[in-house]
Amino acid sequence: MALDEIITLAYGSGGKKTSELIDEIIVPSFNNPELSKLSDGALLNSENKIVFSTDSFVINPYFFPGGDIGKLSVCGTVNDLCMCGGVPKYLSLSFIIEEGFLLTDLIKIVESIKETAAECGVKIVTGDTKVVEKGKGDGIYINTSGVGFLRHEGLGEDKIETGDVVIVTGTMGDHGISVMAARNNLISGSELVSDCRTLHRLSEEMARFKGDVKVMRDPTRGGLATTLNEFVERNSLTIELEEELIPIKATVANACEILGLDPLYSANEGKFVAIVSENRALEIVEALKKFPEGCDAAIIGRVTSKYPGKVVIKTYLGGTRILSKLTGAQLPRIC
Amino acid sequence: MALDEIITLAYGSGGKKTSELIDEIIVPSFNNPELSKLSDGALLNSENKIVFSTDSFVINPYFFPGGDIGKLSVCGTVNDLCMCGGVPKYLSLSFIIEEGFLLTDLIKIVESIKETAAECGVKIVTGDTKVVEKGKGDGIYINTSGVGFLRHEGLGEDKIETGDVVIVTGTMGDHGISVMAARNNLISGSELVSDCRTLHRLSEEMARFKGDVKVMRDPTRGGLATTLNEFVERNSLTIELEEELIPIKATVANACEILGLDPLYSANEGKFVAIVSENRALEIVEALKKFPEGCDAAIIGRVTSKYPGKVVIKTYLGGTRILSKLTGAQLPRIC
Repeated sequence: MALDEIITLAYGSGGKKTSELIDEIIVPSFNNPELSKLSDGALLNSENKIVFSTDSFVINPYFFPGGDIGKLSVCGTVNDLCMCGGVPKYLSLSFIIEEGFLLTDLIKIVESIKETAAECGVKIVTGDTKVVEKGKGDGIYINTSGVGFLRHEGLGEDKIETGDVVIVTGTMGDHGISVMAARNNLISGSELVSDCRTLHRLSEEMARFKGDVKVMRDPTRGGLATTLNEFVERNSLTIELEEELIPIKATVANACEILGLDPLYSANEGKFVAIVSENRALEIVEALKKFPEGCDAAIIGRVTSKYPGKVVIKTYLGGTRILSKLTGAQLPRIC
Repeated sequence: MALDEIITLAYGSGGKKTSELIDEIIVPSFNNPELSKLSDGALLNSENKIVFSTDSFVINPYFFPGGDIGKLSVCGTVNDLCMCGGVPKYLSLSFIIEEGFLLTDLIKIVESIKETAAECGVKIVTGDTKVVEKGKGDGIYINTSGVGFLRHEGLGEDKIETGDVVIVTGTMGDHGISVMAARNNLISGSELVSDCRTLHRLSEEMARFKGDVKVMRDPTRGGLATTLNEFVERNSLTIELEEELIPIKATVANACEILGLDPLYSANEGKFVAIVSENRALEIVEALKKFPEGCDAAIIGRVTSKYPGKVVIKTYLGGTRILSKLTGAQLPRIC
């Protein structure tokens, strides 16, 4: 793969270009077993196994339907820790604020962080604040890093087997489409709302099915299609989805048509996709449905070996097409 | 204290405005014992006590004499962990890159990160990359967060007593003045070089004197004067410095005169200040001097109770003046 000379927005898309950047420049420089797994966080060895994750948030606009950059910055890192099988415990909080930012907006954002952290029982324990000159930022960027302790061991793409079942915890694409609609003022008065929320309760529930849960991941940038590609691109398995089984809100589907976007490539911030063993898949979906944040949980596909390393989807019309990783920058600054 | 309506650069100075922002908006929202200590990181309870710290780096220019933003972003967080008495182990690495950034510059920065991390034996274990549109950043911003394990227990401002001695591990002000000179192209062909380096060896040495080391801190933004104020502003002690004992390079002193800056308010990125018990102060300074990075270690003052909560300095001319915290934004984007 040939990298470009300069960084384009596509390098931040979460799709192919992001992978190239990470695989060719970043990972080879820091080669270690914890990093090379490339999941949402690192599992660190110590007496209590520690999970550790980081995310910088640059979402535009920083207030959006269903949340703001503060809420998102807690959800994002907490959810990454949950996806690694961790119980989230501690967060760091680091701001890069543009000169001229309204204090009242900062206070609202800090309030969201406080509420969201309290909801999932994590403590903000260390922080940093930097200010850059007007025109050298865009309001506010936030980094959170998180430390948790491992509860759910044995998760990993290497556990996936033929016959396993793909489940999602709810409707796909809500966050990305809602933010795009809000950003462009394209759709007014609609019910498009980000799904931004913490997944600590659903991931705790998943830990009850330890052994039958192979891997969990929250499909943020790049959406469901990109995340599922990550599950199979390093092995020779296939993920076969059935389009009619994938839960998508009517409002999201409509907005997608208007905006020319695909909900399967759109970011989610309060859902996860998991690969689970066939014999407990139904039971797991039923367990997730008991929570409001899991009420739309569904089985959406299956692991086979038909097209090695590929994700395919059987469409409403009965055809089958390949779902590749996101290419280019469909939705820049979505998180 | 009245906060302003908008964020100005002074809120990022590391001085008074930064304190106001943190004390009035951030800390009250996340009240917990780990955060309220407000040192460079948090000490987390578990079987192995964990230290955890975060920093975002926005330095301008991102290549400067003696280092670059990559090296700085490892040193900054590693040093914060060291100052908490931790052995640095794991780092997260998160980039916010401006569209149009040169890949070759990113590669140089990643190389610096790699070298510096290897030097002090820390592993980069998790990361994130975001790209923002041209004009919404300034080249590259980096966040690192660090996890380490506690080696040196019992450090804290509350351990400082009258009679204790103030030591520094080397010359003051090198980083801030070098970066300012480079940024403004004011001084060419000079020997001004940032002191940017990791403090893991010196902090390991300090652990040998456990019990006699009261507190350590690396005086970055706001410089020595601001850091020493943090040591006494919450108690009724006084720090009395002697100007003639504070090591300052001649090139730095000269540049300060030209630039109208004060080396005691200028950032350091490879030095720390410690408060130690009187009876072992000389021995500690001798031990530090055995390392190249500690060769200019010196005793620079003493803890008394003369002016409660104040830092004062006895000048070359014999007078005494109060050294307050940095006010306003002397050196924006110095780290």
